[in-house]
Amino acid sequence: MSTDLSPSARLARQMQFIIEADKLKEITRQTLLSQSRRAENSAEHSWHFALMVMTLAEHAAGEYGQTLDVLRVIKMALIHDLVEIDAGDTFAYDTAARAAQHEREARAAERIFGLLPEDQARDYRALWDEFEAQKTPEARFAAACDRLNPILLNCLTDGAAWQKHGITQERIFERNAATITAGAPALWAYAEQIIRDTFQRGLGAAEPV
Amino acid sequence: MSTDLSPSARLARQMQFIIEADKLKEITRQTLLSQSRRAENSAEHSWHFALMVMTLAEHAAGEYGQTLDVLRVIKMALIHDLVEIDAGDTFAYDTAARAAQHEREARAAERIFGLLPEDQARDYRALWDEFEAQKTPEARFAAACDRLNPILLNCLTDGAAWQKHGITQERIFERNAATITAGAPALWAYAEQIIRDTFQRGLGAAEPV
Repeated sequence: MSTDLSPSARLARQMQFIIEADKLKEITRQTLLSQSRRAENSAEHSWHFALMVMTLAEHAAGEYGQTLDVLRVIKMALIHDLVEIDAGDTFAYDTAARAAQHEREARAAERIFGLLPEDQARDYRALWDEFEAQKTPEARFAAACDRLNPILLNCLTDGAAWQKHGITQERIFERNAATITAGAPALWAYAEQIIRDTFQRGLGAAEPV
Repeated sequence: MSTDLSPSARLARQMQFIIEADKLKEITRQTLLSQSRRAENSAEHSWHFALMVMTLAEHAAGEYGQTLDVLRVIKMALIHDLVEIDAGDTFAYDTAARAAQHEREARAAERIFGLLPEDQARDYRALWDEFEAQKTPEARFAAACDRLNPILLNCLTDGAAWQKHGITQERIFERNAATITAGAPALWAYAEQIIRDTFQRGLGAAEPV
């Protein structure tokens, strides 16, 4: 813990970060919710993602039930999308936008995590970098949950978001199979099944919101 | 880990729980967001609450910077409001509704955590009970963050939700001072200051949503 700030000075900076984070609730994604079919926002997605991590950790790649640093994965889930406050949400299948995504998001990480006391800013940035780099079992499992989440919601809403953007089953497989398998093979087996079922039933149109 | 279900049978139950959890995004609270001033929902609140836990843990009651089981507190934050899927959100200052709240929520906990494999259902229920009982440092720190969060958002929106429901500064102090102090004295010092500032400036009306 950094010793150059008093506890109350640290708290003041931490609260500025918490206040800034409230803006993530206003960033909408392409994914629709299973019930109302309104567009999901990135804050509630981050919660659902973290809940998946804590619930599904036993399925992480490696020996079944092996120990993963679940706290680190949950922290990644909680902070990973904060950069969207500046950089916006980038649709998974928007290839053009995704090309410049990392640079935009890295600038946002600098500013947003920079609101925190220095030691925490470094820790949060390291978690964000770890997720981006996809080298550790923790980062790979996090990515598997992050990818499965919108697939699940899309399947629960008859693939309406895929339909809207003309996303084929092949593109979904191409974009997600390797990443989800690397983090949690059982989650890819599950995903593959629900995607096939959804396309077999036929995609529906999004309800008007 | 329970051995009477295969990994894939466990996964099927876990995914039913994750699907059910999506409904929490539809449960709205009295609190307004700082930017759009729309009503917050309980899923995005749970995320913000968990982010506060991970960011503010050093301020937990006890020796400054002492070790708290942060993973357990974050898990409490992530699952605590799931009962609202059945029981709805209970406004902090609705005394009549709060009287029967625990019983309603305990029934919901039974059903919703009961979707999980038995060992996890027990673990999640134990976390929920621990939070409710407010006996451990982890549960108390969780409650301090859970209470500070809407206070913060109310202050950022000129106390519009307090104004709407005729909540006085005295009632806010009465309801929150002891709970927040027990979990994190520094967070109550912060809360007290922003509440006083907000009432001194004068409460504003909620913008039409």
